This record gives sequence, C-alpha cells and structure tokens, in this order.
Amino acid sequence: MTTIVEPVVRLIAHTRLADDFPHEVMSRQPTSTDAETLVTFSGRQCYESFRRPNPATHLDADYIARTVFEQQHGSIIEHATATLLFTGVSRAFLAELTRHRHLSFSVLSQRFVDETDTAVVMPPAIRELDTKARAYWLNAQQDAIGQYVDFVDELTDAGYTRKQAREAARSLLPNAVETKMVVTGNLRAWLQTIERRTDPSADAEMQTVMRMANEALVPVAPSIFARENR
Amino acid sequence: MTTIVEPVVRLIAHTRLADDFPHEVMSRQPTSTDAETLVTFSGRQCYESFRRPNPATHLDADYIARTVFEQQHGSIIEHATATLLFTGVSRAFLAELTRHRHLSFSVLSQRFVDETDTAVVMPPAIRELDTKARAYWLNAQQDAIGQYVDFVDELTDAGYTRKQAREAARSLLPNAVETKMVVTGNLRAWLQTIERRTDPSADAEMQTVMRMANEALVPVAPSIFARENR
Amino acid sequence: MTTIVEPVVRLIAHTRLADDFPHEVMSRQPTSTDAETLVTFSGRQCYESFRRPNPATHLDADYIARTVFEQQHGSIIEHATATLLFTGVSRAFLAELTRHRHLSFSVLSQRFVDETDTAVVMPPAIRELDTKARAYWLNAQQDAIGQYVDFVDELTDAGYTRKQAREAARSLLPNAVETKMVVTGNLRAWLQTIERRTDPSADAEMQTVMRMANEALVPVAPSIFARENR
Amino acid sequence: MTTIVEPVVRLIAHTRLADDFPHEVMSRQPTSTDAETLVTFSGRQCYESFRRPNPATHLDADYIARTVFEQQHGSIIEHATATLLFTGVSRAFLAELTRHRHLSFSVLSQRFVDETDTAVVMPPAIRELDTKARAYWLNAQQDAIGQYVDFVDELTDAGYTRKQAREAARSLLPNAVETKMVVTGNLRAWLQTIERRTDPSADAEMQTVMRMANEALVPVAPSIFARENR
Repeated sequence: MTTIVEPVVRLIAHTRLADDFPHEVMSRQPTSTDAETLVTFSGRQCYESFRRPNPATHLDADYIARTVFEQQHGSIIEHATATLLFTGVSRAFLAELTRHRHLSFSVLSQRFVDETDTAVVMPPAIRELDTKARAYWLNAQQDAIGQYVDFVDELTDAGYTRKQAREAARSLLPNAVETKMVVTGNLRAWLQTIERRTDPSADAEMQTVMRMANEALVPVAPSIFARENR
Repeated sequence: MTTIVEPVVRLIAHTRLADDFPHEVMSRQPTSTDAETLVTFSGRQCYESFRRPNPATHLDADYIARTVFEQQHGSIIEHATATLLFTGVSRAFLAELTRHRHLSFSVLSQRFVDETDTAVVMPPAIRELDTKARAYWLNAQQDAIGQYVDFVDELTDAGYTRKQAREAARSLLPNAVETKMVVTGNLRAWLQTIERRTDPSADAEMQTVMRMANEALVPVAPSIFARENR
Repeated sequence: MTTIVEPVVRLIAHTRLADDFPHEVMSRQPTSTDAETLVTFSGRQCYESFRRPNPATHLDADYIARTVFEQQHGSIIEHATATLLFTGVSRAFLAELTRHRHLSFSVLSQRFVDETDTAVVMPPAIRELDTKARAYWLNAQQDAIGQYVDFVDELTDAGYTRKQAREAARSLLPNAVETKMVVTGNLRAWLQTIERRTDPSADAEMQTVMRMANEALVPVAPSIFARENR
Repeated sequence: MTTIVEPVVRLIAHTRLADDFPHEVMSRQPTSTDAETLVTFSGRQCYESFRRPNPATHLDADYIARTVFEQQHGSIIEHATATLLFTGVSRAFLAELTRHRHLSFSVLSQRFVDETDTAVVMPPAIRELDTKARAYWLNAQQDAIGQYVDFVDELTDAGYTRKQAREAARSLLPNAVETKMVVTGNLRAWLQTIERRTDPSADAEMQTVMRMANEALVPVAPSIFARENR
C-alpha cells in the first residue's frame, strides 16, 4: 500500500521589484530579471555607478559575472530571495539540508501529522537493484510504518494525546519516509548550498534534488544559476 | 553649500508568489498579500492544515496573529523578504543598523565614491537648537568636508590612487555625512530590528527612520507591520 | 542484541580567559567564572565602566542579571561559548536541534559509519508502556537494523562502495537510532535554545536532554544558567 | 592635545578543554593546542575515527590541513572560538568589521561615553605625508572634537540629558576617532574575515590590524593561523 514517491521542486515565490523601484536612478534592461536588476542596483549603489559607465559590464549579466563571480563580491546577491517547495524528499535529505543555516525552513512535522499514509523515497542505489531486492526494501518500509501505526494506537489507548503518541511512535519511522518542506534562501545561500550539495561527494538523493533546485532557480536569475561552467 | 538632507525609506522589492504557487493546495484569500499567503502556506505546511479547519484562524491575518505572535512560531515569517532603500541617513545610523546580522546590506562606499558634494544629516536634537547653533553645526560639517577635499588632493598629488586617497581622507568625514544603502531582510529580521530600534532608548535618528521602515513594510504584510498594539 | 541507551551530556570545552586578559583594566571577582568575567568586561567596554561604579551592579552576577535579563542587552553573552558532547540521543532529536542555526554541529555520519551495532533511544512515552509493548518496540528496531545490514551487504555485492551502500541502506534506519554529536554555541545561543526546547510544548526527549544541557552549563556561568526563576 | 594612537590587538579569551573532555575516547597529542584537539575530536566524531588510523593524518595538524583546507570541511573549526580586544582602531575600521555577521561585538558607545579626550587613528597613507600635512590633519581632528565638546555643552544647556547630548553631538566626530571593541568569533569566522580583510584590495588600516589579529590567533591554533602559504 505504501507508495514510492519521486522528488518535485517547485518555485513558489521570489523577489520582485516593487512599484517604487528607482527606475529613474538606474534604467531597466529588458534582458534582466527582477532579481538581476535588484542585484545590479545594489552592487552599483556601493559605487554610485548607476549609469553603467564600463562597456565590459554594461549588461547586467556581465556585471554580475564580473562582480559576484570574478571579484567575489557575493553579498550583493543576498538581496534577492527565492522560496522552493520540496516534496518527495526523504527525512535523510532533510537532516542534511537543515545544516545550511542561511536557509529558512517550514517542514511537515512528524509530531503533529499522522504518518499512516506516508509515501517513501527510494534511494537511487536501491532503485538499481533487482526486483526482488526492491520488493524486500518496500516491504521493510511498510512493516515499519505498520509498527508506527500500532504504537500510535497503543499510546493513545494508554492515555497519551495524539500529539504525544505520534511524537513517540515516530521513533519507528525510517529515514526513507517522505517529508515536504518550504525552503527560502537568498540567492547567495542557494548558490552555496547547490554548489556544495551537487558535488560528486554529496549524497545521491541530495545531488539529484539540488540539481532540480538549480533548475527551478534559473528563471529567477539565469546569470547566476545558468552559468556555462556550472 | 553643503545641504542638509531628510531621510527617505522606499520599498523597492519584496517577495511575490510565483506562477507555480500551489493554489490547488491552499486557496488564496483576497484580503491577504502575497507575503501573508506565503507565510500562511509555510506555517500550514508543518501541520498539513491547508484547508484552514479552525474558524478562529481561518483568516490568514488571524492565523498569523495566533501563530507568530501568540505561539511565537516566528520562523514562518522568514519566508517573505523585503528590500528597502534608505537615503538621507547618517553614517552613525549605518554603524548601528549593520549590527543586525540577519539583514543584508549594500552601502555607498566612502573608499570608492567622491564625497565632495555629500549632504549631511542633522540629528533631531540639533534641529531644535536656535538658528545660530544650527548654523555653527553646518559650518563645522562644511569645514570637515572641505578638509576631506584638501586631503584627497594632497594624497593624489603625493602619488596615491584616487581610491587610496579617498580611503585615507575619509578619516576626516564626520558621522553626520549622508549614506545611502539597500537593505534586505526577511520579515522576522525586519520585525525584530524595528521593535528594538523604535524603543524609546534607541538613538533619535534611528527611531525616526525605523518608524518609516515600518510604514514602508505595511503594504507587504499589514498583519505583521500594522498590528494595533504596535 | 540491540541495546537501549540513555542520554549523556558532557561539557567538553568552554571559553577561558587568556594570559593577556586585561585584569589591569577590570579587576577579577573571585565569585565570577571566566565566562562571567569576560561577559562583564565586554558589557562594560561599551560604557567604559570598568570600575563598577554602581553598587547595585557591582557584583558581576548582579550586572549580568540587570544587563542581560532586565535590559535585554543579550549580545554580551555571545562572547563566551561552550561545547557539549551529546550521546544517547536519537536522530529525531538531531533533526530538531539542528534547526538552531547559531549552534555549530559535528555529527556522527550515517553515510560513513557502519550502524550494524548502533544502540537505540527509547522515547519517554514508550518507556512507560508495559513490558510486552516495549519488547515489541525493541524487536521492531532490531528488525529495521537487521534489514539495514542486509542492504549494506546487498549493495556492496552489487558493486557499490561501502559509503554508497551505507548511504542508501540508511533509508531503513529508524528515528530511534542513536546519534552522537559535538555541539558548540555561545551562551546566548544556548540560552535561547534551552528556553525554547525545555518548554512543555517541546518534544519529550528534547526537554529531558536540554535540561541536562542546562545543568552541564551551570558551572560555566551560574548567573545565566542557574537563575532562580529558571 | 588630541593624541594619535596605534592599534593593539590582544587575545583575551579562547576555548579550552574542560575537565570532562573525553581523553579516554581520543588521546591528547602533546603538540596540539586545546583548540586543535577539540577541532580534531569534532571532525573525528563524524566518522568515529578517534584512533587516528590513517598515518597521513595521524598528527592533528595534518588532519586539520587535510580536512579543513583540502576537503573544505570547514565547519569543524567552528567549535573553537577566540576573543580579541582591539584598541587604537578607527570608527572606519569598525564600520567595515561589523559587516562580518558571524563575529560578535561589544563596542565603546559614542552615545554613552564622553569623547572629549578621545584619541584618533591616523591612516597609513596620511602617516607618509610631510610634517605640515600631518599637522594640518591633526588640527582638523582636534577642531572636530572641540566642536563636539561645544555641542555637548550646548545641548546639555538646552535641557537634553547627557546621553541625548552625546548622541546628537557625535554627528561631528570624524571617522578617525578611536574606538575600542571586544570581538569574539569561532575560528572559521576569524579565518574567513582575516583572509578577506588582509587582501591587497582591503582598506590599509584594516589590512594592518587584521594581520595583527592573525598573529594574535596563532597560539590558539597554529595549524590554522600559521600555515606556510598564508
């Protein structure tokens, strides 16, 4: 009965220019996104170079390449943020991602939410095993979730509240259990996290999902997330 | 010649919902802003209570009042951010505001930008002195800026680059010199900063400007920045 | 064979005054710890009140009570830090504690370390169930760990490295599996975390362990961690 | 009368092992400092490799070189912290250093402390000008401080409290005015700050002082702050 779920990463919110953005101070380039315009404006505020005097950095994308990536003036990309909704990711993924302290998280709570019908996330390496091994893995997951259900009942019968019962019974839930989370970060935090977590030494699920995160962020700022050398 | 400048705070960017926001999971309330919708969605993600089952918190504004302010679940308002452009503020203001480490700053650089024509910010208490005292204050500011100009010349003549000359000559610039800055924060960081810096014990210029910042943020999330008891 | 383990919290390192501490500027009080002396010095640096002119705050403990707790000048306790070693805590505990971004963590890695002989942490509510239920719980944990061992073998046989095999097989490990971690925080971060996580609404294991953390921190700064109203 | 002051950086506190450090788990190496021992223990906690099985990283210094600098596992050096006392530095220096948000600051307050007798910090480039230019610079600083004193009096006479008077009159104080500050950071924060702020593109005073900070930190962890390639 337990279903295996695939990861999905959706861009659900991001920084947009407000009506009062000072276009009179720095003109808008049609090829720049809102985030790129804000980042460029912020960088140019430091030098009051709003007229883009240098041809080599006249285009906002060139300015960002020069300033953020060559000169390592990374703080300017903190001004734009993006919120991603992750579903179909495991609790193991959660434990690793929350180590990135510049991200903000709202995560499905195993203390509050009934996990009877939770899906599970199969790690990439297990997916490549034979049918029998995969069936054994799924059975093991189902057994664990069944034991969780038994203990929620047991604890509720013993007089615990539902929250207390779920909190204690989650001790039986495995790392493969699906979680869902809203994660917000500024573009610098996202960039650092993605660079770190798409490295070949990173966890296999993590690499897959963070490449999806990178894809989801491209429309926000292609000059940052669709660079050729990435 | 030196002009006295007034503070201006402009909302230049903030979080907006993306096309892929999961309206199919949680319906949009017409009275909620984008930030309020995102914050509510994020909070409800923790409990999967997207159908807003409790009448007391059915309205997003009521949900935010209950969750963020009564239950102190402040992390959910980290998902929405806002960028303010401050002009007409002093270097003294800057030195205090940068202590709030959850904000992100891009500030006019005194090392790179020529301050010959800078304006100055008159502190509230000086404004209430008599004409003669105010004239004396402005003269003193003008003298200091004149000395700065002299030293930029002196150092350039001695073979220093313009950047080196400005960097050294800024040692003469007073705290009243105007600065301009782009400041981004999530709504939790803004709320904490504003609460702290509009306290009667805070610096007078700071109190004034942070009340303006609060005003600028009201359209982003009135349930957070226009609460009755604020 | 799987053993049930109890939580242990040990203070393994903390801030001490260096030889060059400016005792000539502020005298040492025999009743103050190193952390309290440093915190007091730091607070008094803001006002150059090193001679402790006010009798009401002459004692460092009184100064800290007034400054940190009454006047909410909490930043001064960021200057002293402490490192705790947690063992006998669950992966569920880890997932919650890592949300406190001002703490620094080094945690036993389930990707690198063989978990065949891991102990498990029994939640407080399960401990109070009858013998039969507890035996069922422990059996379930043993089964899960046995399945983990099976899959490490299966994956290694299929050609995966040990690290890849453990990374994938940990998908079967439950939340009750023991973890061990070194956690460092400044006293402000510890205080906020402990206040939040000893609240009756917090997870039962978390409350227990964070009360132990508070106890472990008392020798570092009794004026902060052994206050009467705590 | 105004004196010119030189920068001084003193190590006033740092992390030391506590009595309960688990020497029974990992033996102490006589060539390692407390910070290095703690960092190594923390790194080895992740892998439970306390017996130092690999000869290439048997020595803690080699382990740190490999783990922190080659493998970029920088988080383990967050467990040790150090507190520096800076005197003889300018307000311009302060404005730049406070941008490093992982450091903690307690700074002499210009709102509370009387600056009548403040010293000033002469920028490196001004020091190399001729006697006449330097005398002109010092005169300008003295004038500014004299005007500050005048306005404190003026405002006090007008009925403002001393704090309000100083807060407004500091608008006349130049960037060269000395400040004093207690700054605490973990070794990762110090390392990043020093690397960034000793770069040739950094402010001249900043470079000088941050090289002094690096020197002050060498005894805490030579394997981190006295590396050959630094």
